[in-house]
Amino acid sequence: MPTSLSDSCRPYDSDSIHQRLNSSLSRPQLNKDGHLRHFLGVEGLNKSQLQTIIAKAETFFDEQGQLINSPELEGCTVMNLFFEPSTRTRTTFEVAEKRLGANVLNIDIARSSTKKGESLRDTLWNLQAMTADIFVVRHSASGAAHFMATEVTPDIAIINGGDGWHAHPTQGMLDMLTIHREAPRPFEELSVAIIGDIKHSRVARSDISALQTLGVTDIRVIAPRTLLPKGIERYGVTVFEDINEGVKDCDVIMGLRIQNERIGSPLLATSSEYYKHYGITPERVALAKPDALVMHPGPMNRGVEIASSVADGAQSVILKQVNNGIAIRMAVLSLAMQGQREYQLARRQTQTQNNPQTGV
Amino acid sequence: MPTSLSDSCRPYDSDSIHQRLNSSLSRPQLNKDGHLRHFLGVEGLNKSQLQTIIAKAETFFDEQGQLINSPELEGCTVMNLFFEPSTRTRTTFEVAEKRLGANVLNIDIARSSTKKGESLRDTLWNLQAMTADIFVVRHSASGAAHFMATEVTPDIAIINGGDGWHAHPTQGMLDMLTIHREAPRPFEELSVAIIGDIKHSRVARSDISALQTLGVTDIRVIAPRTLLPKGIERYGVTVFEDINEGVKDCDVIMGLRIQNERIGSPLLATSSEYYKHYGITPERVALAKPDALVMHPGPMNRGVEIASSVADGAQSVILKQVNNGIAIRMAVLSLAMQGQREYQLARRQTQTQNNPQTGV
Amino acid sequence: MPTSLSDSCRPYDSDSIHQRLNSSLSRPQLNKDGHLRHFLGVEGLNKSQLQTIIAKAETFFDEQGQLINSPELEGCTVMNLFFEPSTRTRTTFEVAEKRLGANVLNIDIARSSTKKGESLRDTLWNLQAMTADIFVVRHSASGAAHFMATEVTPDIAIINGGDGWHAHPTQGMLDMLTIHREAPRPFEELSVAIIGDIKHSRVARSDISALQTLGVTDIRVIAPRTLLPKGIERYGVTVFEDINEGVKDCDVIMGLRIQNERIGSPLLATSSEYYKHYGITPERVALAKPDALVMHPGPMNRGVEIASSVADGAQSVILKQVNNGIAIRMAVLSLAMQGQREYQLARRQTQTQNNPQTGV
Repeated sequence: MPTSLSDSCRPYDSDSIHQRLNSSLSRPQLNKDGHLRHFLGVEGLNKSQLQTIIAKAETFFDEQGQLINSPELEGCTVMNLFFEPSTRTRTTFEVAEKRLGANVLNIDIARSSTKKGESLRDTLWNLQAMTADIFVVRHSASGAAHFMATEVTPDIAIINGGDGWHAHPTQGMLDMLTIHREAPRPFEELSVAIIGDIKHSRVARSDISALQTLGVTDIRVIAPRTLLPKGIERYGVTVFEDINEGVKDCDVIMGLRIQNERIGSPLLATSSEYYKHYGITPERVALAKPDALVMHPGPMNRGVEIASSVADGAQSVILKQVNNGIAIRMAVLSLAMQGQREYQLARRQTQTQNNPQTGV
Repeated sequence: MPTSLSDSCRPYDSDSIHQRLNSSLSRPQLNKDGHLRHFLGVEGLNKSQLQTIIAKAETFFDEQGQLINSPELEGCTVMNLFFEPSTRTRTTFEVAEKRLGANVLNIDIARSSTKKGESLRDTLWNLQAMTADIFVVRHSASGAAHFMATEVTPDIAIINGGDGWHAHPTQGMLDMLTIHREAPRPFEELSVAIIGDIKHSRVARSDISALQTLGVTDIRVIAPRTLLPKGIERYGVTVFEDINEGVKDCDVIMGLRIQNERIGSPLLATSSEYYKHYGITPERVALAKPDALVMHPGPMNRGVEIASSVADGAQSVILKQVNNGIAIRMAVLSLAMQGQREYQLARRQTQTQNNPQTGV
Repeated sequence: MPTSLSDSCRPYDSDSIHQRLNSSLSRPQLNKDGHLRHFLGVEGLNKSQLQTIIAKAETFFDEQGQLINSPELEGCTVMNLFFEPSTRTRTTFEVAEKRLGANVLNIDIARSSTKKGESLRDTLWNLQAMTADIFVVRHSASGAAHFMATEVTPDIAIINGGDGWHAHPTQGMLDMLTIHREAPRPFEELSVAIIGDIKHSRVARSDISALQTLGVTDIRVIAPRTLLPKGIERYGVTVFEDINEGVKDCDVIMGLRIQNERIGSPLLATSSEYYKHYGITPERVALAKPDALVMHPGPMNRGVEIASSVADGAQSVILKQVNNGIAIRMAVLSLAMQGQREYQLARRQTQTQNNPQTGV
């Protein structure tokens, strides 16, 4: 059992996807009935489980397509633990939590008592003892959410709000919800093109896994070689270096953010060079199916990854993604809390059977 | 359509009040029934509209004069977007929003994804898509709230929490509420003296406009020439450089804060010099009517703009202003949300009539 | 009447406990019925008053020992004024306040208008006028909470969240609640050993006072001479420099945090030296009674004040202290608010009798 997070979490190695997929077989995020009790990643969840999340999210829209409030977390205490800042993700979670009626606390974990020399483990145990029911975790180290859920606080429902370069599963699921709601064909018949910095994108990773689980067989990744993880083809995707080839007749065009801050070495030429070769322009959108969707996880670099006219155009569902993100976060918060309760109830019953004299 | 806020908002030109008053004729803050759907400024609102706000605010006091809660924004999401910090204004809005039962989010916009190169427009569109109903906006650029309401997010009720040197309309209205509740005579019969840095005060601007609309004919501005905007007399106020003359027999004495941080050049001598010539002292208060009110928007520089004994004296209503500020903010939040709903409903009906097949 | 906090609050003099105990005889935190209307410290509260707080806290646990919500502060506005940061204390108060249904505002007082030259007094009066009912105050100056309650805002229920080296009364009371719930014997029969930096600990001060009031006669303080206030023996405690002697046959072992940041001069050798002489090890715990409790206020320095195996061992109630801390804070918030209401009601009735014509 590692004594600190840094012991257990190596910096992300982009070639080790395989190992990580295998390690997910232990199904740490499911209770014995196969229900979520954490939401750590889309890997390890089967088609029916992903469909359950999507279906749950859809219950949060009314007949006019407006999001509703649903007090399913009334009386629960949700703590947003952001070890790295992300105003956008934190805000979407906070809106979702308040729509579910939870007591919400934002813990500025970077400024807290970990500074006083307290270990991460003690910090989390203390927050748990303050009667937290759910931790939403954002961390720069890959596997941080998984480590908390399995090693530190298994009795708190952990929601992964993005960890290192590993996964950003609520972003992945909101993309799936958006495709489900907006695409004119079911997942099994779709061609999806993902364009950009696949190598350093936690979004790409979550999207590819979820698309495959939901039945998409034609996934195309479009990027210069320097922005592709080695061996990516093994995961059943087709690689294109030429965007015009890659987007041909596809149903969904997903742009990725060029994350300048993530790139250590000069893997990219200038941003205008990138736009010339990989920018999502009207001409390139025209090569896809006429009803193709254009998606982007935001924040956009207009004129770098995408033309403004495309971002704001009729085929763009970029702002719908944001809106769907609230519903997806409401869904995983509600489902994980419910599954965590089932898990704790089952555990208490087992304890009572084994030690009937100590049972309440 | 400007592509950034800075394109559309020149630094405030203190001589251009006239143009701004004219531009307000387009009535961007009203729906077709003449109800508020934003609250951008007191200019452009007529007497009856200001009276509606005052009357609404009065409904939030109980018989003992205590503020009540009134869940008129239950289920609504209010985002406080403070582009420049103001603990005092943010806190009063947050109290008001929570008394109305809203879901409240404080977005530290200075630290958010605008830092990642995202434009203001994209940031606001994203926040809107996260199901915001109301933005409370504080910005250092004059016209920022107006720009958002007309150009960026017309479907969100925008409440101006102070923009540049332009306006601070909730402060203006809380002053009107205070005069209405505390003064022994109606607006039409009052003499009001405003003392201090008129030139750089967003409060003075809002106050003068509101007082005139509500029927005050005798408005006196008292300041050294260097702290007066050129041509101020054109707006129907009387200028005094001698405070003893200016406060004579008046009903209301309003001090303004000397905003040292706003003054680029040394327009002022020392603060003790200012106090000597323009400080609100017991002797000067004695020149006004015996029941004259003493007001100040806070935070006060005691011993500079005002003597401590006056600030804490029997004629001071300075802390009542703060208390009334909660009621006024509750009023404009509630009224603007209601008017925004009417506006959206009317628009949807028009769309349905024009395109009956796409109507819901 | 001092005009600023610093005028009234000398830096803490560790030899002046006696004077402070005497000054508390004025009972500023009680209304005329002897009920709390503030919660400033455990000094000045008698046994029955401390028992009332403990009994109230126990009402917030259900039959399974889980904390419940109890909307006793619904409609109340609680402002957390943290003049010095403390994520842990702020979070526990925020959880408690939300479980009581209050409207909660966190005021980052360090960044607020006090920066603009406003006095502390004006800041507090303004926050009061924004309809605050309760201030939770954390301040680095000893006596700050007391100053606010008696001099500045007596109509707001003030809860002391820790002031200087003076007191940390909610920590003291959560320790009492923990002993009450976990110890196998009543207070009168207990031997309690407190180990560590007594001199600089606001926790130790509050604990010793509360233990004595609740009837504990055998209190042992264990520390090197350099970490003991002079004359400590006068307060009815027994001093031990040898921990092995001190913990012998005791019922409760309370470790204190070595607060490196508080110590100006090198009073301590290395931390390993401290552990060798004063660390709470399994061997030392074995010298106490077999059912002795091990306590620590957190955050722990594992391997300095306490061995990890003890901190996580069967006799440790350290995380129960955290959980009890929520209940205690709910109790003092609720009781103080109730007592403040009684106080204000009584005062209004007196005013009405004296001036019947101005009564409502």
